[in-house]
Amino acid sequence: MNVLGINGSLRKDSTNMGLLRYAQDNAPEGMEIDIADLTEVPFYNSDIAEKPAAVETLLQQLEQADALLLACPEYNYSLAPALKNALDWASREPDNHLLAGKPVAILGAGGGVGTARAQYHLRQVCVYLDLHPLNKPEVFVNAFAGTFDNAGALTSEDIMRQVEALLSALKSWTEKVTE
Amino acid sequence: MNVLGINGSLRKDSTNMGLLRYAQDNAPEGMEIDIADLTEVPFYNSDIAEKPAAVETLLQQLEQADALLLACPEYNYSLAPALKNALDWASREPDNHLLAGKPVAILGAGGGVGTARAQYHLRQVCVYLDLHPLNKPEVFVNAFAGTFDNAGALTSEDIMRQVEALLSALKSWTEKVTE
Amino acid sequence: MNVLGINGSLRKDSTNMGLLRYAQDNAPEGMEIDIADLTEVPFYNSDIAEKPAAVETLLQQLEQADALLLACPEYNYSLAPALKNALDWASREPDNHLLAGKPVAILGAGGGVGTARAQYHLRQVCVYLDLHPLNKPEVFVNAFAGTFDNAGALTSEDIMRQVEALLSALKSWTEKVTE
Amino acid sequence: MNVLGINGSLRKDSTNMGLLRYAQDNAPEGMEIDIADLTEVPFYNSDIAEKPAAVETLLQQLEQADALLLACPEYNYSLAPALKNALDWASREPDNHLLAGKPVAILGAGGGVGTARAQYHLRQVCVYLDLHPLNKPEVFVNAFAGTFDNAGALTSEDIMRQVEALLSALKSWTEKVTE
Repeated sequence: MNVLGINGSLRKDSTNMGLLRYAQDNAPEGMEIDIADLTEVPFYNSDIAEKPAAVETLLQQLEQADALLLACPEYNYSLAPALKNALDWASREPDNHLLAGKPVAILGAGGGVGTARAQYHLRQVCVYLDLHPLNKPEVFVNAFAGTFDNAGALTSEDIMRQVEALLSALKSWTEKVTE
Repeated sequence: MNVLGINGSLRKDSTNMGLLRYAQDNAPEGMEIDIADLTEVPFYNSDIAEKPAAVETLLQQLEQADALLLACPEYNYSLAPALKNALDWASREPDNHLLAGKPVAILGAGGGVGTARAQYHLRQVCVYLDLHPLNKPEVFVNAFAGTFDNAGALTSEDIMRQVEALLSALKSWTEKVTE
Repeated sequence: MNVLGINGSLRKDSTNMGLLRYAQDNAPEGMEIDIADLTEVPFYNSDIAEKPAAVETLLQQLEQADALLLACPEYNYSLAPALKNALDWASREPDNHLLAGKPVAILGAGGGVGTARAQYHLRQVCVYLDLHPLNKPEVFVNAFAGTFDNAGALTSEDIMRQVEALLSALKSWTEKVTE
Repeated sequence: MNVLGINGSLRKDSTNMGLLRYAQDNAPEGMEIDIADLTEVPFYNSDIAEKPAAVETLLQQLEQADALLLACPEYNYSLAPALKNALDWASREPDNHLLAGKPVAILGAGGGVGTARAQYHLRQVCVYLDLHPLNKPEVFVNAFAGTFDNAGALTSEDIMRQVEALLSALKSWTEKVTE
């Protein structure tokens, strides 16, 4: 089972990237997690005639992914543009075949409510893209509670357990939802 | 009264830009509308030490704006990343002084429901940014109903009247909300 | 496959009830649709020590349902209280066992955007209740376009086809999601 | 300045009612707060030919209110039906004259995120009703953190200060928004 992790924060020491890295290193048996690199993915614009290399790479990774793991920061009560933009690029492929029907797990690190507001916006996006997000567990991480070190690496045991539970649920959900 | 128009679509013949251009050419007496250029504004990232020139220009335009006119496309049931990103950049200035307390008018052109879904996400963003969006009129434009020409210029008389009503409401609301 | 239809509008000639009745009379082979009666279901209140008979009936119907068909009116840009209240009552049963894991199909008749705004609120409710709503088709019915007769019976061929497609998708989704 | 408090929870020891009672007893000079009684208000239904007495009383209180103070519980990630229903009844008066243009303050007590999810749904309702909710402060009260006594009376000093700040902001906002 191939899972692609996508993170909406572009900064080097992103705590959301820390969540994805922990997931990658602790995936359940039978699951491999790759992490997309969005740093060179430009804003989607239908005038762009030829897809940039970073977009091509992203689309190839999505092609191979059985499921998605979306690390969802919250900026100003909604989505991080880089995450939304990655999904927007993917959605323009014929018949939305890179996304339609795929299972999704969502997690996020941020302020007090742990990116909950942004995650509900992301779930609305999933309706149109025909993605199937897990209902539970919802992983809302307060990044300002000693949960990460300065380089963005996850240090909280409690959150580690939550990420593991999310991956386990994603595995079962993927087996159920995809024939 | 200075109003800054910001459009979430970057393509040359954007119908949302067509709405802003019509507004600019038909602003009520006493209102001047400038339009931001987002084509060179990069994704916000707190690692970026020095603000790019395009960001500096945007922030200066916001400094001078008494109110905002936001052209809100809908991509996959939520916001266009370029619009959200412009607001994210602005929100990082000290005390959010470029945005806090400013009145906003929202309009958008897109598919069947005329970007309504994205506009409600934008309204949630306005809560955090302490922006004051007009409740009414809501301007939802179906872009596929012969409302624009191929270059994105507005051609529908009905929509022209709606844009004018929006600007008139924005003028009154701005006088009321800002001392 | 037993499906329970629940309608948020209490009026006699409800167009949303018209959608459910059409569904009931045109269910695909192997699907039986029952329709809940909410007229005597009071507002949920944890002070109510003994469940009223109408609530007991609703809960029994939910117990037997393999899937839900939710007719979602839109009142003032959000949910009809009677529909939300039925789900609130159900959610208080031990371990949420009447709802958790069940597939859901959503449809609605109302003004211009066909209750879309309310349907997205309903989808957020489904996250907490661990219900699995279909992504597609979304059925948004403009009730003021000659789609119903005065008694609320569905008359539009186009909408009939949409309701049938929704039920067909619900059948496949239920087979997939429930072991 | 007359303010009407409306609470979506009907139970006797409602913590949301505790918030309203504290507000009532600590209103700033020049503000009087009345609290609506929703216990006998039935579900709105356009078939109801004659308004029940409890509805008439509610509408009269709204007629006299310069502003609203909405105590917003969260049930299953969205609004409490009784609060939504009170607004639905009010919205059916000619020209929406009981609500249009009125300022609103929102607060709520509940689980972990303090009814935030329900409050954003309420804010979307306010768009249609042409109500003007304060952006800040947002008052999200965790009701399970020793903030109330068993009878629902507010005991947390921190939350008392937040409620006072909300009322003070409502007073200024009301002076600004209403001529």
